Amino acid sequence: MTDLTAPPFSSRHIGPSESEQQRMLEAVGFESVADLVAVAVPEAIRAKDSLKLPAAIGEAEAIAELRALAGRNRVLTSMIGLGYYDTVTPAVIRRNLLENPGWYTAYTPYQPEISQGRLEALLNFQTVVSDLTGLPVAGASLLDEGTAAAEAMTLARRAGKSKSSVFVIDADALPQTKAVLATRAEPLGITIVEHALDGELPECFGVLVQYPGASGRVRDFRAVAAAAHEAGALVVAAADLLALTLVAAPGELGADIAIGSSQRFGVPFGFGGPHAAYMSVREGLQRQLPGRLVGVSVDADGGPAYRLALQTREQHIRREKATSNICTAQVLLAVIASMYAVYHGPEGLRRIAHRVHRYAVVLADGLRRAGVEVVHDEFFDTVLARVPGRAAEVVAAAAERGVNLWQAGADHVSVSCDEKTGAAEIAEVWAAFGAPAAGVDIEGAADALPHTLLRESDYLTHPVFHQYRSETAMLRYLRKLQDKDIALDRSMIPLGSCTMKLNATTEMEPITWPEFAAIHPYAPEEQSEGYRELIGTLESWLAEVTGYDAVSIQPNAGSQGEFAGLLAIRAYHRAGGQGERDVCLIPSSAHGTNAASAVMAGMRVVVVACDDNGNVDLADLDAKIAKHRDALAAIMVTYPSTHGVYEETITEICEKVHEAGGQVYVDGANLNALVGLAKPGAFGADVSHLNLHKTFCIPHGGGGPGVGPVAVRAHLADYLPGHPLRDGAPVGPVSAAPYGSAGILPISWAYARMMGGEGLKAATEQAILSANYLARRLAPHYPVLYTGRGGLVAHECIVDLRQITKETGVTVDDVAKRLIDYGFHAPTMSFPVAGTLMIEPTESEDLGELDRFVDAMIAIRGEIAKVASGDYDKSDNPLRNAPHTAAAVTADEWPHPYTRSEAAYPVPSLRDGKYWVPVRRIDQAYGDRNLVCSCPPLEAYED
Amino acid sequence: MTDLTAPPFSSRHIGPSESEQQRMLEAVGFESVADLVAVAVPEAIRAKDSLKLPAAIGEAEAIAELRALAGRNRVLTSMIGLGYYDTVTPAVIRRNLLENPGWYTAYTPYQPEISQGRLEALLNFQTVVSDLTGLPVAGASLLDEGTAAAEAMTLARRAGKSKSSVFVIDADALPQTKAVLATRAEPLGITIVEHALDGELPECFGVLVQYPGASGRVRDFRAVAAAAHEAGALVVAAADLLALTLVAAPGELGADIAIGSSQRFGVPFGFGGPHAAYMSVREGLQRQLPGRLVGVSVDADGGPAYRLALQTREQHIRREKATSNICTAQVLLAVIASMYAVYHGPEGLRRIAHRVHRYAVVLADGLRRAGVEVVHDEFFDTVLARVPGRAAEVVAAAAERGVNLWQAGADHVSVSCDEKTGAAEIAEVWAAFGAPAAGVDIEGAADALPHTLLRESDYLTHPVFHQYRSETAMLRYLRKLQDKDIALDRSMIPLGSCTMKLNATTEMEPITWPEFAAIHPYAPEEQSEGYRELIGTLESWLAEVTGYDAVSIQPNAGSQGEFAGLLAIRAYHRAGGQGERDVCLIPSSAHGTNAASAVMAGMRVVVVACDDNGNVDLADLDAKIAKHRDALAAIMVTYPSTHGVYEETITEICEKVHEAGGQVYVDGANLNALVGLAKPGAFGADVSHLNLHKTFCIPHGGGGPGVGPVAVRAHLADYLPGHPLRDGAPVGPVSAAPYGSAGILPISWAYARMMGGEGLKAATEQAILSANYLARRLAPHYPVLYTGRGGLVAHECIVDLRQITKETGVTVDDVAKRLIDYGFHAPTMSFPVAGTLMIEPTESEDLGELDRFVDAMIAIRGEIAKVASGDYDKSDNPLRNAPHTAAAVTADEWPHPYTRSEAAYPVPSLRDGKYWVPVRRIDQAYGDRNLVCSCPPLEAYED
Repeated sequence: MTDLTAPPFSSRHIGPSESEQQRMLEAVGFESVADLVAVAVPEAIRAKDSLKLPAAIGEAEAIAELRALAGRNRVLTSMIGLGYYDTVTPAVIRRNLLENPGWYTAYTPYQPEISQGRLEALLNFQTVVSDLTGLPVAGASLLDEGTAAAEAMTLARRAGKSKSSVFVIDADALPQTKAVLATRAEPLGITIVEHALDGELPECFGVLVQYPGASGRVRDFRAVAAAAHEAGALVVAAADLLALTLVAAPGELGADIAIGSSQRFGVPFGFGGPHAAYMSVREGLQRQLPGRLVGVSVDADGGPAYRLALQTREQHIRREKATSNICTAQVLLAVIASMYAVYHGPEGLRRIAHRVHRYAVVLADGLRRAGVEVVHDEFFDTVLARVPGRAAEVVAAAAERGVNLWQAGADHVSVSCDEKTGAAEIAEVWAAFGAPAAGVDIEGAADALPHTLLRESDYLTHPVFHQYRSETAMLRYLRKLQDKDIALDRSMIPLGSCTMKLNATTEMEPITWPEFAAIHPYAPEEQSEGYRELIGTLESWLAEVTGYDAVSIQPNAGSQGEFAGLLAIRAYHRAGGQGERDVCLIPSSAHGTNAASAVMAGMRVVVVACDDNGNVDLADLDAKIAKHRDALAAIMVTYPSTHGVYEETITEICEKVHEAGGQVYVDGANLNALVGLAKPGAFGADVSHLNLHKTFCIPHGGGGPGVGPVAVRAHLADYLPGHPLRDGAPVGPVSAAPYGSAGILPISWAYARMMGGEGLKAATEQAILSANYLARRLAPHYPVLYTGRGGLVAHECIVDLRQITKETGVTVDDVAKRLIDYGFHAPTMSFPVAGTLMIEPTESEDLGELDRFVDAMIAIRGEIAKVASGDYDKSDNPLRNAPHTAAAVTADEWPHPYTRSEAAYPVPSLRDGKYWVPVRRIDQAYGDRNLVCSCPPLEAYED
Repeated sequence: MTDLTAPPFSSRHIGPSESEQQRMLEAVGFESVADLVAVAVPEAIRAKDSLKLPAAIGEAEAIAELRALAGRNRVLTSMIGLGYYDTVTPAVIRRNLLENPGWYTAYTPYQPEISQGRLEALLNFQTVVSDLTGLPVAGASLLDEGTAAAEAMTLARRAGKSKSSVFVIDADALPQTKAVLATRAEPLGITIVEHALDGELPECFGVLVQYPGASGRVRDFRAVAAAAHEAGALVVAAADLLALTLVAAPGELGADIAIGSSQRFGVPFGFGGPHAAYMSVREGLQRQLPGRLVGVSVDADGGPAYRLALQTREQHIRREKATSNICTAQVLLAVIASMYAVYHGPEGLRRIAHRVHRYAVVLADGLRRAGVEVVHDEFFDTVLARVPGRAAEVVAAAAERGVNLWQAGADHVSVSCDEKTGAAEIAEVWAAFGAPAAGVDIEGAADALPHTLLRESDYLTHPVFHQYRSETAMLRYLRKLQDKDIALDRSMIPLGSCTMKLNATTEMEPITWPEFAAIHPYAPEEQSEGYRELIGTLESWLAEVTGYDAVSIQPNAGSQGEFAGLLAIRAYHRAGGQGERDVCLIPSSAHGTNAASAVMAGMRVVVVACDDNGNVDLADLDAKIAKHRDALAAIMVTYPSTHGVYEETITEICEKVHEAGGQVYVDGANLNALVGLAKPGAFGADVSHLNLHKTFCIPHGGGGPGVGPVAVRAHLADYLPGHPLRDGAPVGPVSAAPYGSAGILPISWAYARMMGGEGLKAATEQAILSANYLARRLAPHYPVLYTGRGGLVAHECIVDLRQITKETGVTVDDVAKRLIDYGFHAPTMSFPVAGTLMIEPTESEDLGELDRFVDAMIAIRGEIAKVASGDYDKSDNPLRNAPHTAAAVTADEWPHPYTRSEAAYPVPSLRDGKYWVPVRRIDQAYGDRNLVCSCPPLEAYED
């Protein structure tokens, strides 16, 4: 009998068909996936039961359930402010960028040659930030304003001359910024002092000024800055980008560092995120910048080319010497914000800002006329009204009228205007205050900005901010940049440790529905019922999948999840009277972020050796435990290991650490090898973070957003991150928004809902099979490093090029860049072992694509052989000269000893729709020596 | 004082900024646009008043108003059937095709080299149709099932041997098909005879069998076919594609022609359209196929390449000898349907069909158990229940339960199952009939298909229907095809007479909202209030814009609007007792479609000469009027003329024709040169059709959909197209659905709403300025043909290459194909004058793009000069060899006397993101000689 059931979503998510799977099993030498798993995954950790998740539903059903959840969110006009302002995402940007897999499925631009499109967009972002803040160097985005403030605090501490451990923060700073700073300061021994900034400054290493303040007040902080500098302290301005189009730039007022959010440049609320925070610094501090920085360099033909600059600053290289654990940025959101600036241009942004300001002025006038006290005379967009005893009543009346205001205590109501504010909203607010109706004349109103602070300097003078004003021009600019890049919509991105799997459309569609996109993070609870149910359900599913008892989705990146997990361990030890436990054991194979997070959580990192197979050296572990027994706080291990192997000793490791009183942290980066087969919370770990942007289908967005939930066993549940607006939790918040990047959680919810327990398990099984298939096919050509039982790998495999390099001079770089000529993004290079490539196929690639990749690798091996045999010149061959642009291969002169077609079409399939890389190999060192981090003048591009 | 108003949408729609506009005015020699218009547009026709349309609103406001309208449509489960069935558009297809400007902004694939992506998709469509219908040649889509049936009727008449004028139609045909056939038959002198097809056939030239019938019945029509063939008649099967996966193909039962709708292959209801109809024919009839046909040919390098085949059949060439007036097809929808088949494959489609069938079986069983009579024992998806006197009550009860059924008279209710039907829907239907609840076991049910009709033949065996089953694979296939084509998201498409302007995202977004997408055309009126208000408003705005009194948006293509307009004239004359008036005057410069439409409307075409300037020769007009005075029905003129000139004599022409008792038809193809400046209905015309896909921003979709409203003065208002389900109107319907392609009307509504009268006028002015700017810049390099007063053109200009061709051998074809190397779609070639290029820039292109195009044309002129001077070889030069693929330019051997960089990068700007054409120049003749119209075997692609 024919099976009439509709095929499950998992059959669309998982690349290989059943028959392809059979062929792969044959190649690997197993009869069934179950047989493979039985050998590959250690018996000791394998879950006995299947996942207790709701049965899978189809795409249409999932959309229906999400529509029902969305329907339980209520979209009111938001005038709450506090760092989140409503904004209009230009439709052309929403559709062709935010809703376009060509943009959202791209990976972090570590391979710059295939990332020129988004690198240009990020350079635009940096230029916007640098111009508006009046500081010369801006980074390519941070996670949110709160964590950006924390990064600025630590930057100020290490860069400044003061020996003080005090960091002064503006009493008028945003409450979530205060909360995140407190969380981050304490483990580092920094004392936060809140201060009105109008009297004498306490001794400190840094001062944070909110500009404009949370109360709306716009203050000239030149004197504060001068006093701080006098005392050797650095000045951080937390500034509103839109306000900066009208008021003097922080850099002009003496700020050393500026931070803030770019959310109101076209990025929806999303119930708190994701949004791109920014940071810019004065000359001299650029090498201290946390996070990524895009710079201009040159390629092998001498043309300008973009790439990430000063990468040696980053945590994955600096490990426990890192000054920040940031990995993921908010690339997609930064790109949106930059395109918003490109589309509006300086005069457009200024007009928006001015309109926002005038609505605030008119609002204040109307309140004053009605006898309501307006606290500040000078403000940008936010009016603080004093209504003794009536605040709750006014806020309730406004909500009745469809407008959310902010109640600041019993006596104050704060109202923020934004790009969407119009006369109708002003009228509703007046009515809520009991003020009489009146005409709204913003043209006739007078500005209420301090005269000393009016902006005089230019900004966004670069042509890019003047060329794309029609929708047609913007559309084409977006297409042009998109076409320069390789994302998952073109080919496999076989990145070890980064799980670049399908980001299904059905998962993505809901995030731009207004009911999810347009909710302010501080909207009254009854307006976010749908969101909170979705989040609670997702947390419970993640707990089931990982075997833990409690999950918080607040951390908006894996690094933040790690940090939150370690804070939980720390708080647990302290609560148990064991505050002296501060040693964190980390295997030498670990990702550098682990060490950086441990340091941020106030721990001392002790490295545990690994054996020749990349596994934890148990003898060394015993020695280190013995040595640090009383101080042992935790061990952080990645499972399967960063070498892509299911270590057989994991349960033993957990037991040893527990026995010594330590906690076990299992890094969930490789969870795609475990879901449905084994649960860290069940096989011995106490805490893990997950990467929803790896295992749970949130797209990488070209380098963010991400979500890094922290999952803990019951004894740690009390120490999960707190709410940024509520004091009293044992551990503070790690993100600015209560639910972190809530706006993208529907993606993971939909994935889990459509896969169900069986589907998730099947995906993991296929991921393991695919990795072993690749390993088996590649092994005759490249040595495969680090296998476990049965010669099997987990969900990724490492191919070793060291011998090849020694013998032929061909490096991993050469192979990676040559893969571009074959139409592929390179695998992870030289991690965890220098001179190797780590490949993770994921379950979403079908057999055709896997074979296309293997065929490319084999063809490249053939090219290497020609170098070895002398058929190819050692220094002038297709590998060393890769990648080859169309311009290079069509050049009138062809000086190379190999042919043009060998360069461009090494395999025939490339003749059907070849990806042409826009630049040749980029000179990293040149760019770091000649640092240019904002849009270069057009002459730079002239021939 | 700063202007704080947000810039209107028109500033995004119109490409040039104010300063660019000034520079263009300077180049053309005017101080202001008003001055330009005063000279360019004849005083006599200029409107004195500004358009009375609601003031323009912004994009966010327009979306809000559309949401409110959408909210007044109610989406119920539709089980109405009658040719429209609910279906699941796979999300990956919706987002990356239907919502992707890379697909929807493409033009008709007349330039095949830059259209390989959509041509491949259309070839897939033809293969689906051909395979499923069992007939060897299928076309690339028709407008709807009703008009496809009409085209099949006329095909049968001209191809068959019978001299009869009778066309027999199945009494069980769809009601809208019957209605459209009646409309189309009458002017052609065809008598329609409805027949049960179970007794002897009347003498006839053709028979149409509905398979399955409207009542759900599946009948073996072999005997009918044999009898028809015996009598020299052709057999047309109107077949359901989904049913054909289970039952024998029409071709196997004796059909000569199959037609039908592909809507249920993933295309939403859209309140009736747009959907792609199909037609396939047996061997021997392919040269009679109406509409477009994609075929395989070879390019200059001998590789396979797709292009439109047998174009000499088409109306624009055959004029009054044309057998059909079809121009626009439904490419975008045909592509969706083809991708649906690619994504599901044969076994997936079969499974869907089988499930649909089994739900119908279970439904019928439950009704029978409850004592309800089920009329037919054998059916596919539709169950006809007899409930004497209770039909209305059952239908109302079902609607109460959220399900729409179809009431077929007082005693019958028809229920159609579809892809979305599940147990829940069956239960609701049972309940509405008062049948008891029961289990729904589709696996256990028995099929109710005739045993003699079970499908045994294979279908969709080509690899393309087996390769793209994972979402990742489908996503990449869509991207790969998209990347082969030039659409508006890459560059200007400077097509004369086709107005390729911006299709703004805000206009496009609403069409995929469920409240617009998921409404059945026959849903009860109270469920479509929003739609009907939107349509009524749009019709009234179009009336205001054109100066007419009444508008019908029913015609789903310009050609159908023409036909409807001429039918109105015909009916008017008849009603006035002047039925003998049947002469339609058409200037020799007219588009061929005009003549074809006139013939279809039963008129005799009389050609009026044009003078050397392309204007109507008034002396000849007088002569023709005098000669045909008593028989004069109408004149059809295009205004501005097809030569892009505002003829000064238009009012005179109107008067002359009116004086002789004729009506004036003004073809609205060039309305983009009139909106806001002049109104055909006010300057003398009686009827016009508009092309919403030209002037009102519906995207071309790669060759459709389109909407061609017909607008008339009051005396013709009664003769607008009737409702397909309601008899009694003086003129029948011209489209199958009451409101034609209602699903895309929100696009034009949004455009008009956001532009307002002033914005529409400004767009027209800019379009005129841009055309004159191009003409002025090109004139020193190419002669510009046909200018009006002041040497000005209207909204397009014609450059004349005849002298160049004579002197150098370089043809329009060479220039058109060379433009591809420069990244441009070619202008319209050799229309209206052979040997010329017609260029329409539209208002949406900014100055940078206009200049880029002019620079390309000038550079090409330089290349032509080199041919003339002998610097380039006459037969081996970049023009003759254009376009150049990457494969050609990177070939190891370069045999040409010009350089590779001259071939690939004739201007430096191409180095930043060059479009690489996928094939070289295509041999049209080869393909017509060796006709292949379905997917060729893979070996064809081997090197």
